[in-house]
Amino acid sequence: MEKNLPACPVETTLMLISDRWKVLIIRDLLAGTKRFGELKKSVGNVSQKVLTANLRSMEYSGLLTRKVYPEVPPRVEYTLTETGYSLKPVLDAMTEWGTAYQKRTVEEG
Amino acid sequence: MEKNLPACPVETTLMLISDRWKVLIIRDLLAGTKRFGELKKSVGNVSQKVLTANLRSMEYSGLLTRKVYPEVPPRVEYTLTETGYSLKPVLDAMTEWGTAYQKRTVEEG
Repeated sequence: MEKNLPACPVETTLMLISDRWKVLIIRDLLAGTKRFGELKKSVGNVSQKVLTANLRSMEYSGLLTRKVYPEVPPRVEYTLTETGYSLKPVLDAMTEWGTAYQKRTVEEG
Repeated sequence: MEKNLPACPVETTLMLISDRWKVLIIRDLLAGTKRFGELKKSVGNVSQKVLTANLRSMEYSGLLTRKVYPEVPPRVEYTLTETGYSLKPVLDAMTEWGTAYQKRTVEEG
């Protein structure tokens, strides 16, 4: 868990998920455990280096766990923790708002 | 309004508010209209240039309006539009999650 958190809860949340990749990683892991390669494909357009850095930081923050299976080649799987999964209402609110915004944009041509 | 939106509603929302300053601007304007100087103080630690750029982009996206009163010196006020205000559930969910995360961190020492 992060230790030095801002006093404002909104800023705390931002500190942990303000990076757009992190939000997309959460979106994709809400559906269930994924391997690194699957995540890279579903998140879309992210470099291996940036995806790895974001996953490490989210592991450190307690949002997800990383499990390595000693196979050849090794299989690495990522799963949201309870804390990570509890971000679902934030993503749900974003989904609802984004859908309404898209609709309005289409209507306004 | 923005025209070229991603297909995914979460990505649409991220496109409009993934910048942390934008979220903090929304947080502060949810309480009501604010002048530029008030916003600069309440958002905290943001440069004039960056704050101005974010406000312009949010005006373009239809999240807020800017009103200039022809006084000396001119008074400039920012107010959330209905679209901007409708982000309240996203911020509420972030507040709730951030509060729970902070509590957990304190408990774990």
